[in-house]
This record gives sequence, C-alpha cells and structure tokens, in this order.
Amino acid sequence: MNSLESLDKLTDCLSKLPGTGRKTAERMAIKLARDHNNLIKNMISALEDVSKNVCCCSHCGSITTIDKNPCKLCTDQRRDSSVLCVVEEPGDIIMIERSGGFHGRYHALMGKISPMKGEGPDNLRIKLLLERVEKEKIKEVILALSTDVEGDSTASFITDLLKNKNVKVSRLAFGLPAGSGILYSDPVTLSRAIKGRTIAV
Amino acid sequence: MNSLESLDKLTDCLSKLPGTGRKTAERMAIKLARDHNNLIKNMISALEDVSKNVCCCSHCGSITTIDKNPCKLCTDQRRDSSVLCVVEEPGDIIMIERSGGFHGRYHALMGKISPMKGEGPDNLRIKLLLERVEKEKIKEVILALSTDVEGDSTASFITDLLKNKNVKVSRLAFGLPAGSGILYSDPVTLSRAIKGRTIAV
Repeated sequence: MNSLESLDKLTDCLSKLPGTGRKTAERMAIKLARDHNNLIKNMISALEDVSKNVCCCSHCGSITTIDKNPCKLCTDQRRDSSVLCVVEEPGDIIMIERSGGFHGRYHALMGKISPMKGEGPDNLRIKLLLERVEKEKIKEVILALSTDVEGDSTASFITDLLKNKNVKVSRLAFGLPAGSGILYSDPVTLSRAIKGRTIAV
Repeated sequence: MNSLESLDKLTDCLSKLPGTGRKTAERMAIKLARDHNNLIKNMISALEDVSKNVCCCSHCGSITTIDKNPCKLCTDQRRDSSVLCVVEEPGDIIMIERSGGFHGRYHALMGKISPMKGEGPDNLRIKLLLERVEKEKIKEVILALSTDVEGDSTASFITDLLKNKNVKVSRLAFGLPAGSGILYSDPVTLSRAIKGRTIAV
C-alpha cells in the first residue's frame, strides 16, 4: 500500500463522521499523517478505550460503560419512572441531561422514520418502546424528536400507536431558541412561536 | 474511567483536527461510540496503518511511505531539478501535484513565520532550504505560500535570505479563484487581481 492509499483509507473513515465532507476529511488525514507521533497515538488509544469500555444501554439506548448496563439513568431510584422521554439518538440524552430540565427515564429510538434513507419503523426501537410503556406503567411519553419532516412523521407514527393506551403523549415546545432574535429566525419557526405564544400578564 | 470520561478523551483528540470545534468533535465521538462495531474498528486500523507506514520525506517534507524516503518526488529523474517549489505544509504538495501545473522539486517549511503562535524562522526548515538551493544548483525558487499576513512575511523573509544568491525567486499569481465571480470576491483580492491583470489582446 503506498502512502496515498493509506491516506485515502483514513480519509474514507473520517468522512463518515458527522459534519465532515471529503475535503475536510482529507485535511484531517494529512494533519494526522504529518505529526503522527503525538496525535495519532492518542487518537488510537482513545478509540480503543471507547471501543472496549463504552456501549449503548440495552434498556434505554443511552451511552454507558459495559459494566454498567442497564445504565445509571435506568437504575437511579431518584428519577421519575412514570415519565419517559423518547429521543432519536444516544447523544440527544447527553444534551437533555446537560440542560437539567428532565428527571425521568429515557428511550432512544436509534434513528427516525425516513423513507428516503430506507429507515422504516421496524429498524427503530419502537416495539420496545410500546413494551416499556405497558410494563413500566408510564404515565407520560415526551417526544423529544427533531423538528424536521422526518422527526414530525416519527412523532405522528408513535402518537398513533400510543392512542387508547391510557398514556399522555407530549412534544417539546416549538419556538425561538435562546439567545436569538426575530431577525435570525425563519418563517416556520416564527409562525410556530406565534401559535405557541404564552400569556405574560 | 466512566463512559463520559472516555468520550471526553476522544472528543479532546478529535477537536485537535483542522476545522473541528469542541461541539463537532463531541458529535463525532458520540457517533463513534454509538456504532462502534464497524466505524471505530476501521478507524483504528486506518490510523495504525498511517502510523506504521506513512512519514514525511526527510528531504522535501512531503508525505511518503517509510520505505520510500527520500520520496519519489525527490528521486524521479524526469522532474526538473533546477526549480524548487516552497510550500508551508506537506498537504500543499498533494494539492499542487493534483493540479498538474508543476514538474520540479518541492520543499515544505512545516509551517510559516507567526510571532503570535511563537513560530520563528528557527522552527521552520529554512536553513535546510538555503543548503538545498546551494547544493542542488537551484535556478528558481517558487514561493507557494498562503496569501495572509503570515504567508507574506515568510515570503519576504525568504526573499531577503536568497538575495545575492544568484537564484530567481517568484511567488504564485494573486487573483480571482476559478469558478468565482466579482460579487463573491473581497476588496484585497480584487485590488490584487486588477494590479496583476493580463493583456488579452
């Protein structure tokens, strides 16, 4: 294998990471090849560490260590077991935990319904969600899904399945993000923020 | 080490790659942790491959394999040995080779003069450049450096050193990039493009 083939192989891997096009991945590979003594070794050790120790919780799908499965979010007795927050990806759970705004249980679907990408409901952890709602006596399911077409259709699909199951189903509020202004918003967000306005006085 | 510490360690490594902020690096780390069975293993093997086989040519600084040092750009007899193209990074050599516009030898400085980042001329391969110019009987040095303040001052520094050495020193043309328009340009580029205009008829 010559040096460019090795670089190409690494570029291929890197370009599969989120937010990384072919051109960026190539610059990353060159940087790694250029000062490999420090960065490349640390990177390999960090990847091996994640590969050996980190997995997704078999119950809720969040990121946990192999020796803590089910994870501490599933086993912590102080958390409210009657509220279930449904997200798309394990990373979403980390973001919501960081916000400190939720103290119930989680369920990661591992994707969203996307006919364009060949992702149907059967590829997602939706059956497991229905079982959990029944078995764990869930009172409210909060759908914390993305606000695009695919997130919306996934939300409608799950809402339909949970009808007549004696469980409240809610979605996160639509509106303006924090630290933003009208000028930086878009028409869909604005019309949703107006529709969902709250009374101040 | 818990799962978040492992992720943090990986995020740290990834955020050192070019064009990658902390937030992007975190999303990358989560993606790697989430479907590690395929991506993470390929990534480790690609990194190990680069670490074992790829190095920088001890002569010109371009990226090569450990068993081809000096690299084939330095040893190819069909290339013009009297013209030396000076670049900042090994990646620049790959880009110029891809353009097909140059058939001489290369010399990578491994950086540029940047007092702000503590990079002085002594950290760069400038002394080696002077030795090569003398020993290899170079007739022209093409400075293919970036068009920012640091690139400009590195170019002036090298131009001064090569004065009275009986060698022609040139810089790449300034002007509009291909596939672009006046509307997408900036004042500095435009004034340089006007100054360097070429006569059509």
